[in-house]
Amino acid sequence: LDYQHVQVPFEITLWIMLASLAKIGFHLYNKLPSVVPESCLLIFVGLIMGGIIYGLNDRSPPVMDSDIFFLYLLPPIVLDAGYFMPSRPFFESIGTILLYAVVGTIWNVFGIGFSLYGICQVKAFQLQDVSLLHNLLFGSLIAAVDPVAVLAVFEEIHVNEKLHILVFGESLLNDAVTVVLYKLFRSFCEMPTIKSVDVFAGVGKFFVVGLGGVLVGLSFGFTAAFTTRFTKDIRVIEPLFVFLYSYLSYLTAEMFHLSGIVAIISCAMGMKRYVEANISLKSHTTVKYFMKMWSSVSDTLIFIFLGVSTIGENHEWNWPYICFTVIFCLIWRALGVLVLTFFVNRFHVNTITSKDQFIIAYGGLRGAICFSLVFLLPDFHRKKLFIAATTVVILFTVFIQGMTIRPLVDLLAVKRKRESAPTVGEQIHIRFLDHLLAGIEDISGHWGQYYWKDKLEYFNSKYLQKILLREYDQPKSSIVLLYEKLERKHAIELAQAGQLGHGPAHPSFLCSAFLCSSSDRTVITDQKLEDTPNPDVLDNMQEILARNLYRIRRTGPAYNRHTLPGDSEPTEQAKEILILRHKSL
Amino acid sequence: LDYQHVQVPFEITLWIMLASLAKIGFHLYNKLPSVVPESCLLIFVGLIMGGIIYGLNDRSPPVMDSDIFFLYLLPPIVLDAGYFMPSRPFFESIGTILLYAVVGTIWNVFGIGFSLYGICQVKAFQLQDVSLLHNLLFGSLIAAVDPVAVLAVFEEIHVNEKLHILVFGESLLNDAVTVVLYKLFRSFCEMPTIKSVDVFAGVGKFFVVGLGGVLVGLSFGFTAAFTTRFTKDIRVIEPLFVFLYSYLSYLTAEMFHLSGIVAIISCAMGMKRYVEANISLKSHTTVKYFMKMWSSVSDTLIFIFLGVSTIGENHEWNWPYICFTVIFCLIWRALGVLVLTFFVNRFHVNTITSKDQFIIAYGGLRGAICFSLVFLLPDFHRKKLFIAATTVVILFTVFIQGMTIRPLVDLLAVKRKRESAPTVGEQIHIRFLDHLLAGIEDISGHWGQYYWKDKLEYFNSKYLQKILLREYDQPKSSIVLLYEKLERKHAIELAQAGQLGHGPAHPSFLCSAFLCSSSDRTVITDQKLEDTPNPDVLDNMQEILARNLYRIRRTGPAYNRHTLPGDSEPTEQAKEILILRHKSL
Repeated sequence: LDYQHVQVPFEITLWIMLASLAKIGFHLYNKLPSVVPESCLLIFVGLIMGGIIYGLNDRSPPVMDSDIFFLYLLPPIVLDAGYFMPSRPFFESIGTILLYAVVGTIWNVFGIGFSLYGICQVKAFQLQDVSLLHNLLFGSLIAAVDPVAVLAVFEEIHVNEKLHILVFGESLLNDAVTVVLYKLFRSFCEMPTIKSVDVFAGVGKFFVVGLGGVLVGLSFGFTAAFTTRFTKDIRVIEPLFVFLYSYLSYLTAEMFHLSGIVAIISCAMGMKRYVEANISLKSHTTVKYFMKMWSSVSDTLIFIFLGVSTIGENHEWNWPYICFTVIFCLIWRALGVLVLTFFVNRFHVNTITSKDQFIIAYGGLRGAICFSLVFLLPDFHRKKLFIAATTVVILFTVFIQGMTIRPLVDLLAVKRKRESAPTVGEQIHIRFLDHLLAGIEDISGHWGQYYWKDKLEYFNSKYLQKILLREYDQPKSSIVLLYEKLERKHAIELAQAGQLGHGPAHPSFLCSAFLCSSSDRTVITDQKLEDTPNPDVLDNMQEILARNLYRIRRTGPAYNRHTLPGDSEPTEQAKEILILRHKSL
Repeated sequence: LDYQHVQVPFEITLWIMLASLAKIGFHLYNKLPSVVPESCLLIFVGLIMGGIIYGLNDRSPPVMDSDIFFLYLLPPIVLDAGYFMPSRPFFESIGTILLYAVVGTIWNVFGIGFSLYGICQVKAFQLQDVSLLHNLLFGSLIAAVDPVAVLAVFEEIHVNEKLHILVFGESLLNDAVTVVLYKLFRSFCEMPTIKSVDVFAGVGKFFVVGLGGVLVGLSFGFTAAFTTRFTKDIRVIEPLFVFLYSYLSYLTAEMFHLSGIVAIISCAMGMKRYVEANISLKSHTTVKYFMKMWSSVSDTLIFIFLGVSTIGENHEWNWPYICFTVIFCLIWRALGVLVLTFFVNRFHVNTITSKDQFIIAYGGLRGAICFSLVFLLPDFHRKKLFIAATTVVILFTVFIQGMTIRPLVDLLAVKRKRESAPTVGEQIHIRFLDHLLAGIEDISGHWGQYYWKDKLEYFNSKYLQKILLREYDQPKSSIVLLYEKLERKHAIELAQAGQLGHGPAHPSFLCSAFLCSSSDRTVITDQKLEDTPNPDVLDNMQEILARNLYRIRRTGPAYNRHTLPGDSEPTEQAKEILILRHKSL
């Protein structure tokens, strides 16, 4: 037996296997996940495992390594979040999200830091040795809402899209603020004296860290899109580039102490539309599928590790400090949301209701990011107290808030997510209104979001698409693409129901009927759809069949590492069947 | 700048990126890969990179770590090979393959070892200090044909399937022999005296290592199939299990010093048919796509690393030893193939022609496995000589043999791969003949391959399928499945050509026409296909449409980490379009 040799990959594989099996287990019993969020169940599994390890070895189980968390577990989740981010609601609320993420987080950090410092001054609590700076440092790591925890809870409660994007967007974008404040206070703790220059430099860093992340992300995103222009002959490695470039953007940002989360989100959002146009349908399925799979596994592992790491002897218990931390986290967040929303509502027609405000405040869950940051703290005599307080805050928010938020949403009758996808007609009207508003803004000289969106769209179609898309010379309007997609879906459905006719009907008629009902400005470029009369189509089809009869004998399956054998084979067989069928008619 | 922090993942990502970009580069210029195999080009890129690193740092570039090779780079390639292995030709030639892999490899090891020892006795060559055991050890690592190198060359030359499977199967299965002999001789080198017991124990190990690998692989494969029975509610993590269980089988086998390659191949071949039946179509696409992608990247990295590792100061040059190694490798392989094929041909109707024999002997390429094994040798004074000889043999076989094998195949007019896939009629006749032969073998009491195949098939359908398949109660005959697949393909093709009729034609007529042409014994269970007359179908469709009109308002997209948003949305839109279209008609 040579366990040493295979230990690292073996244990990693086993952990992933455990996570996947746990996930299957929960889904086998449908009732449990509808009451308790999956994140709580996973932490619970982790706690049990940690207990077993502690019981067997009689020493603390290994804590989650911060490097593993930040370098390997977090990126897939954030990539998935960024790639599938609904861009319209995100950009419509970007101002509010940034306000919550930047001002709100700073508010929480200083609020929690100063009030905990106040608590430390009470002699009865025996906490006088915790300095203001240490409290602020603790505040900076405990204040940030955690995207992983928020996602895990909010995707199960189905609140309306705007509310979701406000909480989730905040949890993603506050990373820049957290990074800056945490590093600032940590370096202050180690400095003998703090000059006012350092404080100003810290404020300047906000912009560098945030905007730098966006820049790094966008440049990697556009490079990825550009690279996929050239993958036509080697489709199998297309999905790889999506993952490689996003991961590189994250690592590069981290390397330069910029915000990796902001970078990977910009990268994913920047590359998405170009990459999707360049790569094949199967590659696209693989990208989507693998992203979901990866983020799902990462997420599971994080919560299990969180549970395992909780067990052990890393904690120093001090009732007042821990209780007041939980209370201050709740109070300052609630106050912050109230005050900021008051200002937001004054400048917006679409106000945030008081119910929404409550859910925003209540949905401020903490998670594995706080946990990893507290373990990254330099060693000092009260580190174990901070670890204990962080653990309690995380468990409190994930268990108590996470489990009660669903009943509360029901009780308050918070506006839920729109149940149906927008119809084609609605989409067209929305787009029409966008153009109209952009025109109005342009004429009135008010440079609002519609104006900028229009400019960006113009820049995109004039320059970016030409560089980044492979088949730019044949631009298809999105309505034609949608029509093709629907036709394909329809065809598959008919085939599955065994109702597929082989004789073509009136495509021209169908097409015009469809066009009447849609009335979009865009022109259907695909002439074939419009003016092929019935007999021509039949002739055409016979021609295709005759040609295919020849082709069957020419091409065949290949056992090759660069192509999938299934790709060509069934097509050939399908054609043969078609011919047989045609002859027998 | 904090490079240290992200170094490991950053450099891994960069290497993979380099490999992918190199692949794209080669495929942009179509002429180059048709003359020079990709493996040669990649080694060449590696050589240049190694040269640059050597020039800049003035010390040897890092050699490929044997652990990285065996634990991370080799498994994806072997998994891909096993999963897509054409099982029929493989099992038809399994006897011949095993003969080449076991007896042929032993023949080569001892042939090369003893004759090199003979060379070492010549005083003029100054090699008297290389003992017989060291020569045999060297023989054991240089004798094995490398699956990665064979695959890279053979998938480009398209020889007939039997020839391909003979060379490729040998290169995979000789792993068990190589592992045993290499470890045996290495331990003998370190032992003071060798007892005859040790030699017999070594012979016994062959069976343990090979059959143990098969057992480990099959048990993990069946567990994987069993696990995918329960993934219906959580489709996104289905592909994960295919990868996790195969990798675990490899690692477990390696842990117990069994043959990891044999294990992962048995695992992949064992699980394939059950997993494919259990998982969804999209999961299946992802599995196939990702396997191809991964193996393709691994393969690229291996050849680049091989090139990089060649540069440096690890070599001790001794003309006679190196030249004679190359010559003996060629001679002993040619002799071995001749002798073994003579025996094989005496017992088979389907003989291996002399042209085929030449290609089998000439296609015995060496590659990264030899290279990794030679670096794993314990340190002794002649290790650098062995490294030099191994490098030369690899470069000689990959470059000279790899580049000349295609012209030779053309020149000798070796029987090429059958260009077309077997037609449905052929497939049915083959299956019919299988049953017939199994019956004949049963009656005549001759337990041949058809008899065993039939028994296995019976055992499979009686027990295994019931345990491992989710929907066993509705077994569809393969011809029905094929028909459904073809209908789907056909539908998509029609939709893409814009020729899809919405009015259903005569499915019953079509179906019977199809049945006439196929005349299989299997009964079509799908009654819908047979007896739905035309007007009923139309009514039915109107009903479906009416129902869908209601459903549009009920279901919609969900932003969720466990489902893909695209899944439900277009279907709904498709239905809406259908209704609009239907009304306008």
